[in-house]
Amino acid sequence: MRLRGRKGIRENLESQQDIVTLDPREHKGRWAEWFGNDNPIYIELGMGKGQFISGMSVKYPDCNFIGMDMYDELIRRASEKARGIWMEQGVDLPSNVKLALGNIESLEEFFAPGEVERIYLNFSDPWPKSRHGRRRLTHPRFLDKYRSVLNEKGEIHFKTDSLTLFEFSLNSFAATGLQMNNISLSLHREGINEEHVMTEYETKFVGQGMNIYRCEVMVGNEALRKYQEHKMDQF
Amino acid sequence: MRLRGRKGIRENLESQQDIVTLDPREHKGRWAEWFGNDNPIYIELGMGKGQFISGMSVKYPDCNFIGMDMYDELIRRASEKARGIWMEQGVDLPSNVKLALGNIESLEEFFAPGEVERIYLNFSDPWPKSRHGRRRLTHPRFLDKYRSVLNEKGEIHFKTDSLTLFEFSLNSFAATGLQMNNISLSLHREGINEEHVMTEYETKFVGQGMNIYRCEVMVGNEALRKYQEHKMDQF
Ligand SMILES: C[S@@+](CC[C@H](N)C(=O)[O-])C[C@H]1O[C@@H](n2cnc3c(N)ncnc32)[C@H](O)[C@@H]1O
Ligand SMILES: C[S@@+](CC[C@H](N)C(=O)[O-])C[C@H]1O[C@@H](n2cnc3c(N)ncnc32)[C@H](O)[C@@H]1O
Repeated sequence: MRLRGRKGIRENLESQQDIVTLDPREHKGRWAEWFGNDNPIYIELGMGKGQFISGMSVKYPDCNFIGMDMYDELIRRASEKARGIWMEQGVDLPSNVKLALGNIESLEEFFAPGEVERIYLNFSDPWPKSRHGRRRLTHPRFLDKYRSVLNEKGEIHFKTDSLTLFEFSLNSFAATGLQMNNISLSLHREGINEEHVMTEYETKFVGQGMNIYRCEVMVGNEALRKYQEHKMDQF
Repeated sequence: MRLRGRKGIRENLESQQDIVTLDPREHKGRWAEWFGNDNPIYIELGMGKGQFISGMSVKYPDCNFIGMDMYDELIRRASEKARGIWMEQGVDLPSNVKLALGNIESLEEFFAPGEVERIYLNFSDPWPKSRHGRRRLTHPRFLDKYRSVLNEKGEIHFKTDSLTLFEFSLNSFAATGLQMNNISLSLHREGINEEHVMTEYETKFVGQGMNIYRCEVMVGNEALRKYQEHKMDQF
């Protein structure tokens, strides 16, 4: 049944240039052109099979979404997902979601400074061994990359099931002087929040009764200013 | 068997003026005088029965410790504890630990600005109902009080078993712009750390296999500077 080899996947993806790019470098500084509008660009780094990014694109039609992963097979599955979910809405060609094959290590080669308004990190690989700490997507060296592509309203939204990754991440946000907001140590404790679009991993973990951690990070100056204005409302 | 009424406790405490004060206002700006030296002053707010403050005083003889609580019965038990633990060391009169009856609401009336070097908050009452949020000892209004009595090296060390209190506290530290450090979501997950002196509540909760959360907050400028210098060592 393994009809499709590695080459087959590539060919398949190359035929989908309406929503898939195998070379996000080509779009650097010109993503808005591809989307055909100036709506804010929200990206998910390490999107997996694409449930979240597709769901978001339907829920927020006035935003542009890019799902990035380094595995072509996942891009293929995510594109199936995105087309399927839009088809259910009666739309043949999803216009506000793109899928990009790329390694997050090279993020600055894919996006111009200020081109991105929000970064989603969902259930990123925890890399539990401390000697692998540098690979964690919330390591300070990645936060520097994120900062350099985010705009004035820029935020990072992070969720994970991993206690050790979340702990590491809080310390990393703190050490890099980034402003945290809406830290949650148990995202779904008051029942599933319909506002939250779930990822594949999240659906699975929540089904198993596991705890989900979440946190927002205000990066851009305008995001910060807005946070400063309203931060005392929560107390 | 209830030989000792409320009045009895007061009389008992009044006879213990070597280590107990029923009126911490009297010592404001003059705690060093009472201790008879200029060692740094570390205080525990809401100390309960005093296991932590006594243990700390023995472990760190070059620091001065003050345990504060608002219940006289707890001051009495804590003084028994402190005398007992020092007796085991062959010391009749503990010299670096004092116990103070007082309500934390009035903290600025008990300590002069900069008189305190560290504040310990251990297993503070969680006040789970959101309408009681202002009573939580990590509410921004309390953080303001702490800031006003802490010195240049000032830090707050906070531990709790309460997920909701810890979550609230992280957001409160973040909102007040305080620098967090060594955030731990599972303090004892690698076995009991001998470095950590345990409180009564901690002993009980850890025995039940419960999770303990912990965090340090750098308040004074020198504490901050030191943190800034070393913060990247953890990555
Ligand atoms: C644990 S999965 C989570 C998938 C999805 N976000 C979810 O919540 O269901 C992590 C994903 O990140 C991708 N990934 C990890 N490191 C990456 C990197 N450096 N560049 C691009 N993708 C990466 C992996 O291929 C994988 O699909
Ligand atoms: C849950 S107990 C924890 C005791 C101890 N720290 C431990 O970890 O075992 C909280 C303590 O804080 C004290 N407390 C609460 N609010 C206080 C206040 N406003 N002023 C002084 N003490 C207070 C209570 O009397 C109680 O002893």
